[in-house]
Order: sequence, then C-alpha cells, then structure tokens
Amino acid sequence: MAAELADIENPKERETADRLAPHFGQDGLVTAVVTDAAAGDVLMLAHMNREALLRTLDTGQAWFFSRSRNQLWRKGETSGETMAVVEIRTDCDQDALWLKVRMDGKGAACHTGQRSCFYRIVDRKTGRLRAG
Amino acid sequence: MAAELADIENPKERETADRLAPHFGQDGLVTAVVTDAAAGDVLMLAHMNREALLRTLDTGQAWFFSRSRNQLWRKGETSGETMAVVEIRTDCDQDALWLKVRMDGKGAACHTGQRSCFYRIVDRKTGRLRAG
Repeated sequence: MAAELADIENPKERETADRLAPHFGQDGLVTAVVTDAAAGDVLMLAHMNREALLRTLDTGQAWFFSRSRNQLWRKGETSGETMAVVEIRTDCDQDALWLKVRMDGKGAACHTGQRSCFYRIVDRKTGRLRAG
Repeated sequence: MAAELADIENPKERETADRLAPHFGQDGLVTAVVTDAAAGDVLMLAHMNREALLRTLDTGQAWFFSRSRNQLWRKGETSGETMAVVEIRTDCDQDALWLKVRMDGKGAACHTGQRSCFYRIVDRKTGRLRAG
C-alpha cells in the first residue's frame, strides 16, 4: 500500500489533520530538516517536491529535489551516503518535514565530507565562523 | 561591537569562509532551524531576512521574518514564548542557519500551544498522522 497525500486548503485544518497534507510552496517544494536519529544533531536541510516525498515514504530512503540541479535526487546515489528514514514528522502548517535518519554511508551527510552541513559556529559578536 | 555580514559571491568560498556570509534567496530570506539547546529536538522552522539576522546576533534573542505577515518578528513578542540564542551555526552554502535556543516562556514554541511545531508523526505506509 502506498501512502497518499491529502489536499487540504484551509491552514487551520492542516494543523489538526490526521492526514499528511503537505503545503507545497509556489516552487512546489517543502523544506526538510534532517537529523541523526541516534545522535540527534541536525545534519542538513534540503527540499522535497511531491515525487521526492512519495518516493521517501515508499522506499524509506531519503529522496530530495535539488533546486540547483532541478532534479530528483536520492541522497547518496553518487556519494554512497544514503539515509534510511527512521521517523518523519510534519510541522503545524505542513510546509516543513523533519526526517530522523540513520546514515548508512561513511557518515558524511555534507558534500564537503563533513558529518553535518552545519560544521561552523557563528561568533555572535563578530560574525566570524569557527569549526565546531 | 556589532557583527558584520560578509558578501561572498563564490559558493565554494562560502563553504570555507571564516566569516558569516549568508546567501539570501531571491526573497531575501534564509531558513532557520530552531532546536532546544538542552533537549536537542527540533522546535520550529522559520525564516530570517538580513535585519532579523542582525537583530538576533545583536540581541541574542531570536528574531525572524514572517512571510505571511510580511514583517520582522521577535519570537515571543506577543506570546511570551521568547527564545534566547545559545549557539548559531551556518551550513555549507550559508543559506540556512541552525539556532540552538533556550525557551524562556512556558515552553510552547508552536503557536498551537505545542512544545514543538513537529507534534505529529507520519505513518510512512499510509500517510496518516499521529500525535507523538
């Protein structure tokens, strides 16, 4: 059985719905936050169109839509850094998703080779960045 | 001393920069993921324009830009659910920020009264949502 996405126009109804009814933006995308299911840290932010979301639900692997390459993209299909979905949550207005994942590659979610894309801490007083 | 935002055109340079150089979208916004600094869970997703980011850096309180209301917005200014910034990180291409915060209100980050906006878990096989 494949998951179905509901279509709910009313924002208040999306907040209380018991059906996934993503509110895709004018670009056809919702934002997905990806965290490590075990460690809990934020690994990356990406976007999903309807097809990426359906494939993620269907396969349990993280699929996204690349805005720069304008194409569907299974995370890790070239790098090997695939992600198995442990849990998916939606937010109140259903324009964002939270994926808790298990990293099945070498553990580098970022294309730079870092574990997380968020590998730099901002010094609030100066705007300087440091590794952390 | 107020933090300064750098202006870096080259995406590769943004990845290795030691200066905060946000890559604002055509709408002038970057996405901000907000997690609880202590518990680690994702509380909400929001957006920042340049001014919201500068105010956040300057004050240590979370400021955002509301796309629906088209205005700057200090989180909690009406609800009391203010957020003190414990740490800010930027991602590789600097179009997203990760804020670790301390909730200083009653602990309801979501306007629905829930602790987190991500209060529903998606059943991957059916697309149904359940509280969690």
